[in-house]
Parts: sequence; structure tokens; C-alpha cells
Amino acid sequence: MKIAVDGMGGDFAPDSVIQGCVDAVKEFNIDVIITGPEDLILQKLSLYDYPKNKIKVVDANEVISPNEEPVKALKKKKDSSLVKALNLVKSGEADAVLSAGSTGALMAGATLLIGRIKGIKRVALAPIMPGKKSPFMIVDAGANVDCKPLYLLQFALMGKIYFENILKTVNPSIGLVNIGAEEEKGNELAKETHKLLKKTDFNFIGNVEPRDVPSGETNVVVCDGFVGNTILKTYEGVASTIFGMLKEEIMSSFKNKLGGLLLKSVFNKFKKDFDYTEYGGSAFLGAQGIVIKAHGSSNAKAIKNAIKQALVCYDNKVIDKIKSEIEKLDIDNNENL
Amino acid sequence: MKIAVDGMGGDFAPDSVIQGCVDAVKEFNIDVIITGPEDLILQKLSLYDYPKNKIKVVDANEVISPNEEPVKALKKKKDSSLVKALNLVKSGEADAVLSAGSTGALMAGATLLIGRIKGIKRVALAPIMPGKKSPFMIVDAGANVDCKPLYLLQFALMGKIYFENILKTVNPSIGLVNIGAEEEKGNELAKETHKLLKKTDFNFIGNVEPRDVPSGETNVVVCDGFVGNTILKTYEGVASTIFGMLKEEIMSSFKNKLGGLLLKSVFNKFKKDFDYTEYGGSAFLGAQGIVIKAHGSSNAKAIKNAIKQALVCYDNKVIDKIKSEIEKLDIDNNENL
Repeated sequence: MKIAVDGMGGDFAPDSVIQGCVDAVKEFNIDVIITGPEDLILQKLSLYDYPKNKIKVVDANEVISPNEEPVKALKKKKDSSLVKALNLVKSGEADAVLSAGSTGALMAGATLLIGRIKGIKRVALAPIMPGKKSPFMIVDAGANVDCKPLYLLQFALMGKIYFENILKTVNPSIGLVNIGAEEEKGNELAKETHKLLKKTDFNFIGNVEPRDVPSGETNVVVCDGFVGNTILKTYEGVASTIFGMLKEEIMSSFKNKLGGLLLKSVFNKFKKDFDYTEYGGSAFLGAQGIVIKAHGSSNAKAIKNAIKQALVCYDNKVIDKIKSEIEKLDIDNNENL
Repeated sequence: MKIAVDGMGGDFAPDSVIQGCVDAVKEFNIDVIITGPEDLILQKLSLYDYPKNKIKVVDANEVISPNEEPVKALKKKKDSSLVKALNLVKSGEADAVLSAGSTGALMAGATLLIGRIKGIKRVALAPIMPGKKSPFMIVDAGANVDCKPLYLLQFALMGKIYFENILKTVNPSIGLVNIGAEEEKGNELAKETHKLLKKTDFNFIGNVEPRDVPSGETNVVVCDGFVGNTILKTYEGVASTIFGMLKEEIMSSFKNKLGGLLLKSVFNKFKKDFDYTEYGGSAFLGAQGIVIKAHGSSNAKAIKNAIKQALVCYDNKVIDKIKSEIEKLDIDNNENL
């Protein structure tokens, strides 16, 4: 696999990105193209010992910040590390692209520069989250705020293929986020999507209430991007609120401090699991190439793991499988769906 | 105030309901009408010492369960404790109604039996939740799954009046749930509602991301019922997942057990705060009477507190204030909004 990595994306770029790439090259024997200011990247790379022919640098002298309007930024900053990395996939020079930078710009680039798989209506963001029983996935977690039933059906299909291949789960369970367990519950989108999912041969287990999402009992949780992002962000918010309040209580008395000290390793483990929210990177599913978003605060290890995720997608031909399954999906592609 | 209480609603009905009513009558000097099987209720009441003229019983021999389809149940079970209680408000014999039973049936009854305030488009569920900084309110938390911008504007107005009067907060801050802080973010509903809220003289602080909802920094959080219910249920789910996992970890070693023992009071406090999710009852705002839903697992104290909440609404003329403010709301009542 050849992966294009946005050298300037993320809070700790380019250092942690470069170190993550070096570690990945050594561990997975892949090819990496890092985009960014050539002199800077080469100088940082010179500090490491690695097979020199496995990492190339493509010069890029602009940076897209997460605050910029995605589509405008893509059009304006053609010399940015992100646009250069996306174009490497577009031209076929790379199989995958990874960025820890702007989620919106990466998402827009997946659609506008790389392009959607034929038949796919929308590219969806699919993070893998830590659940109580096992990890689970939300599709879409924020890329599409206004959806039609057909989009959600396709999210389910893409999520199923991705989960099967990445988490090695045969026939993963698929649930539709809804505010009641009964089929007739929910808004128009949920009711219509339910009907479509029932017609498939997926392991569709029906509606999943948001209360039950964090358990991880359902592998692939399907919803529109507004609801998915709401779940993701409430998840983060509640976890950080609870840990923040716990910390305050623990510091409030000697007895509590002692208890906190004894449980320090437990709290640290939890903080890590729930702070990061996502396992490795989040995939944008539906593009004609592997597109992985790493967390903005990724360290070298997180970058390496996100590259590994791209590699698993590559080795398991996830894009080809989506291409072939979407053709088979026996649904009239009516725009009204 | 005279309050009609559904004697048969809730997991611990009629016992905890009756005890809660007795305690409320003694503490707040109000009048209560309990609906339910007359013989049973009177027999249970005879166990208590209280001013006999303050509690009346209205005979009702059916019960609506939370699993029944709300509208059908209301129409079919005219002799149910819930329908009888709702009708007491409709006829003017009671000022308020309280039930710990079916949320859906109480909601449907608020609209179909009691009726909406003139000008109000939809009745909304408004629970008060424990936040890190202070309690906050979600409107709508699940009553209306498909909304228009005007509904959300009205939810904001009702939420503002309710929060001001119940939590004694001058000019409470109002936020619109959205998946980005910027005005142009979000789905069509959020974008259009943002424009409407900006035109009001409310203390509108703009978009609130779901991640920031649990902090309680924003007093009144406005959204459609699908999103609101998703926040509410994710909140519950994440909290119970974290506490469940913590418990497992604590039981896994002697050191952890000791730490857990020292922090027992902290955990118990948290479990209580986050398990119940709501402070007292949740109001249905927009009906022509005070409608309070108590938690299904309410004990006597929770029932008493929910009655107190109704009393605060009554003493502060919340319904009259909503009636008068909704007339003043300077928005063209265009159905397309």
C-alpha cells in the first residue's frame, strides 16, 4: 500500500505525524508520501533511521486550519498539504489518504477531489467507539446533516462491510438509531429507513435507542449525521463531565484522595478510553479511495495506528467490496427515498 | 392549588403515589384528587394521618400501561386513572395533573384532552437535568420528532418562562443544539431556527454543541424531540455504562475494592444524580394546564417533589405567562416556518 499523509494536519504536526509515518514504515513495510514544506519535512525526517526509499515527500506550502470553511479552503489552497495528499489518491499515485487536520475539509475533499463510488449518494463518517461489551461504529457521525432513507441504507451497507473487515466480525449486527424500540416509532426518516433495512439480507436487529448505543451490543449504528454527531458529542461531553466531577470530589477530602490514589490506574484507563472517544482513525466511507481521519490531538502512536487501519482496509479490499455490493443492493435508486 | 394525581401510574403505584400525596398535602397545604379504584385507594389512604378534606378520590377502574399505543389507549380506556385525571384539568376541577405512568399517553392527553394554549403549535417535554455547573433544561426532549422552526422558537419561549419561574433564574441563557458553533452550521431546521431566535429579545447565546450540554452552562437547550431524546438517552446510557464499568474494575482487585470503599459516598451521590437523570418531574409545556410527568420509578419523595414543582408553576402563574408571551411573540405564524 502507498498512503498519502497530510504532514501538516493535527495539533502536533508535523512532528508526531512524521514520527508516526516512520514507525509505520518500519513496522508494516508500506510506502508513505508525506505532504508539507519539503525542507521542513526532510529536515525532521533526517533525525530518524528508516528505509529511505519507503518515504517520499511532496512539497506543499499552505495549511488548511480546522476553522476554515471546507469547500472554500479546498478551492483556495491548492498548495496545501491536505489538497496535495487528496490529489495523490485522485491521480492514483496513492491508495489511501490520512489526515489529522480539518475533518470538514477532508470530508469535502473525499467527495469533491477523490469522488464518490458510483451509486453512492453520500460519503459518511464512520468512527469506531469504545463500547462496554465491544467496540461499535456510528455511520454517519456528522458528514451529512440532512439525509434521505436511501442514504442511511447505504450507510448501513458500507458500515457492515467496513466492520466485517476491520473488526473481523462475521455478519455484524446493524441497528437504526431511534427514540423507541417499536418499528412505528420515530421521525419520518427513521420510519422509512426501517422499511428499507427490513428488506435487506443484513443482520438488521431493528431500532436501537441511544441509551443502548454505548453498550456496544449493536456493531453498526446507523443514523443521519446530525443525530450521529449528537450521540458522539454527548458521549464525549457526559464522559468528560463525569470524570471532571469525580476529580473534584476526590480532591475534596483526605479520605477521597486516598481512595482516588488507589483507583488511579482505573481512572487513567477510563480517561484514555473515553477521552479519545475513537479507536484509531475514523473512515470516510463511500469515496473511491481509502480516506482516514485521525484525531486532531493524535500522537505518533495514533498516527501509526490510523495508517494500520488504512492498511487493513487495503489488504481486505474494502473499497472494491463496497463497489461490488452497492451494485447488488436491490433498491430502486429513487431520489425520493 | 388543586392537583389531579394518576393514582395508578408508575412502577410503585399506588403505594408510593399515595404516600407522596399525603406528604405533599401535609407539607404544602394543597388539595389533591387521586384517581384509581376507589376502594383500593381509600383503603391505602386510611393507613395515614392527614387532613381528610384535602384529599379526594375519583373512581377509575382501568390502567394505561407504558406499552400501549398512547392515542388508542386514551380513546379506549375512558375509565383509566390517567384519563380521569386529565379530564379533571379539562373540566377546570383541577389546576394541574401529575402522572408517573405512560409518558406517551400523558403527552397525547395534554394535547387531545386538555388542549394546547392558543397559538402554541406543539406541546413539548421539558425535563430538568443535572449539569456540572448547574441544572439545565432540554426542550423538546421527545414529544415531537418532526419539527418546524416555529415550533422550536416556541419551545425556547416556553422554556425561558418555565426556567425563570422554576429555577429562579433571571433571563436564562438559551442555546440551540447544533453540531457546530458557527451560525451557518447544521441541518435546515437548525439554520432556520437560528435566524428566528436571533430576532427575539431572549438571552440567545447561539448554537450549543451536544458536547457542551452536560456542563449546564446553557440554561435552556432547544432542539427537536428526536435530537432531544437522543441527548437525554445517550446521557443516561453513557453514565450507566461508565458506572457499570467502574464497578467491574473496582471489584477486580483488593486494592481497587479498598479504593472503591473509600469513595463509596462519592459514587452513591453520582449514581443518584445521573441515574434519575431528571430533577423531580418533567413538564409538558404548552398545554392549557400544568402537566407534570414523574419518573416511572418514582418513590414517595419523588412524587412529593413533582407535586411541589406543579405548585411552583401554579404560584408563579407559568401558564398565564406563556399565554401572554406567546401573543407578544412578534413572528408571522407562517405554517412554513
